[in-house]
Amino acid sequence: MLVDGKAWRSIWPLADGTAVAVIDQTKLPFAFVVARLETLADAARAIAEMLVRGAPLIGATAAYGFWLGMREAADDMHLARVADTLVACRPTAVNLRWAVERMQARLAPLAPAERPAAAFAEVGRICEEDVAANAAIGRHGLALIKAIWQKKGRKAPVNILTHCNAGWLATVDWGTALAPVYAAAEAGIPLHVWVDETRPRNQGASLTAWELAKAGIAHHLLADNAGGHLMQHGQVDLCIVGSDRTTASGDVCNKIGTYLKALAARANGVPFYAALPGSTVDWRLSDGIREIPIEERAGAELLSVQGRTEDGRVLRVRIAPDETPACNPAFDVTPAGLVTGLITERGLCPASRAGLAALFPERAG
Amino acid sequence: MLVDGKAWRSIWPLADGTAVAVIDQTKLPFAFVVARLETLADAARAIAEMLVRGAPLIGATAAYGFWLGMREAADDMHLARVADTLVACRPTAVNLRWAVERMQARLAPLAPAERPAAAFAEVGRICEEDVAANAAIGRHGLALIKAIWQKKGRKAPVNILTHCNAGWLATVDWGTALAPVYAAAEAGIPLHVWVDETRPRNQGASLTAWELAKAGIAHHLLADNAGGHLMQHGQVDLCIVGSDRTTASGDVCNKIGTYLKALAARANGVPFYAALPGSTVDWRLSDGIREIPIEERAGAELLSVQGRTEDGRVLRVRIAPDETPACNPAFDVTPAGLVTGLITERGLCPASRAGLAALFPERAG
Repeated sequence: MLVDGKAWRSIWPLADGTAVAVIDQTKLPFAFVVARLETLADAARAIAEMLVRGAPLIGATAAYGFWLGMREAADDMHLARVADTLVACRPTAVNLRWAVERMQARLAPLAPAERPAAAFAEVGRICEEDVAANAAIGRHGLALIKAIWQKKGRKAPVNILTHCNAGWLATVDWGTALAPVYAAAEAGIPLHVWVDETRPRNQGASLTAWELAKAGIAHHLLADNAGGHLMQHGQVDLCIVGSDRTTASGDVCNKIGTYLKALAARANGVPFYAALPGSTVDWRLSDGIREIPIEERAGAELLSVQGRTEDGRVLRVRIAPDETPACNPAFDVTPAGLVTGLITERGLCPASRAGLAALFPERAG
Repeated sequence: MLVDGKAWRSIWPLADGTAVAVIDQTKLPFAFVVARLETLADAARAIAEMLVRGAPLIGATAAYGFWLGMREAADDMHLARVADTLVACRPTAVNLRWAVERMQARLAPLAPAERPAAAFAEVGRICEEDVAANAAIGRHGLALIKAIWQKKGRKAPVNILTHCNAGWLATVDWGTALAPVYAAAEAGIPLHVWVDETRPRNQGASLTAWELAKAGIAHHLLADNAGGHLMQHGQVDLCIVGSDRTTASGDVCNKIGTYLKALAARANGVPFYAALPGSTVDWRLSDGIREIPIEERAGAELLSVQGRTEDGRVLRVRIAPDETPACNPAFDVTPAGLVTGLITERGLCPASRAGLAALFPERAG
């Protein structure tokens, strides 16, 4: 996507083959900084410390981490160690494990000497497939947005609420939840996006608001608390969120707070969609609430907030008393019954086992 | 309530009769500062700028503002002007209008010369009634908490989730939602409170967490996004919130985000109660979503966050891009159907017209 007139992706190999570059998302929106990942350890740290985040981008970064790891040593023992190191970085997003298993499966049969080059080629394919999948999600979601716009008499902008950041920064390019928004904007449909702040890490305030401003799409930031009130008053036409892991039965695990918006959408007759590539589906799982491990992150993420002072310094401030402890689950699960549908690279489907199996018969087993 | 061993109220007249003192709640939790209100304008500013907040305390402050106004001039024209000035400070909390109308009704029949002294006496009664009502809410809520504790086999602590601050800082003393918590703690029932951060003004992080720490009650701060996930996993036994305005039919208008927690409570079988004195009921209203005016506050409240730096300075930091606009509704309405019951100074009742009328027959008309 364009940033000040120049096309960017969220991750790319340097032309000289020495390293992988990523946009350091912990620095946004205050600074646009590119970080170099030169080693497996760099890639693992970028995932764990959330320089990169978003299920598809975590997968792509893990795949590049595999390449970096293979450059360090490519024997079978190291192959297994690289896989273990990367999978341990974040527990919830399934694309991480998916990418690691795909790299393992590709590399294990090869001689060690062939592995680095094969790894580089495979990660390139993973990234191009991600871009293509997201572009397709955009096209399928566009049809949905267009239908709502027509139902509104083509008069008022379509009001879309999104939670967290599932834009191009969460993927290699285009995004998942925001791909339909970008496609609809390109198609000339008037849009307005309600951006949930997304505490505690504020990905809505710092990433989604930044992306939408760069793309020139009208939006307002909202406290996470506000969406239910707006839905009660008819100010939301559609919710679209991403997914960090989706069960074969259509339960959607996404950033903490997604579930509350899905409840409000259901109570107020607002369609609620999750946009996700097939790689986000965990075909082994059928009960998201019981089976998906929810990452508990440090309470410090909630107890202090990063921002910019009036004189331009970026720092963290503590918002609670010194003695206050915090509980910080990073994701929640929205049961399939609250999800109007899934927007995948193969089209829309109901959030159900039958719906997903119809689109992905080769994986549904 | 006790702060470091000394008993405080949130508002009190200075002994020399020169002014009213309030705890400046915009400074908490970083500093405990007492502000002097010497004029009507001081009282109006304290309400509008939220040095004081919480429906009952807004009412008490408005009543003191009436006294301060009467000291400035006590003729009929000024009496009307004082009322108008105070009512305009905040649009949602009904206690503000309730207190102003009560002061007006008490003072209007008197000769101007008698009004200042009569105002001082009346505001004293309003404050004592508030303290007594909240103590009674505490007793009635204690029974509820005790029943849950017994149902849990008296083994594990009762986990109570609350939103915003409806503690003693929101009233003259004791609080509404937290009064049952304080009463249960005094009765020796083991408790743990989940404290919603309550964006955008963070009253949970800065006020409720501070109150509970001072009272020695176990608690954890939560992102507003997290409560639904905890309820899905059986980690919340009871929700208690306050109310800024309650319709005669039992709809509860409270801090933005309350509605989302009520939806999650209903979906997960968690009892959801609002604790409120009868003065919070607006007997003229029957449809909260359509009839209660929701205050829209400045977007700046959301776009920047106040906190303390590592070196101890308290300042605001901007959390979104410079060009990002925000939408900031301050309250939402939870329909009566989602409210398990109301905890009032006269006991518990269903959130319904019949329930409220049975407890307050003289006002239900």
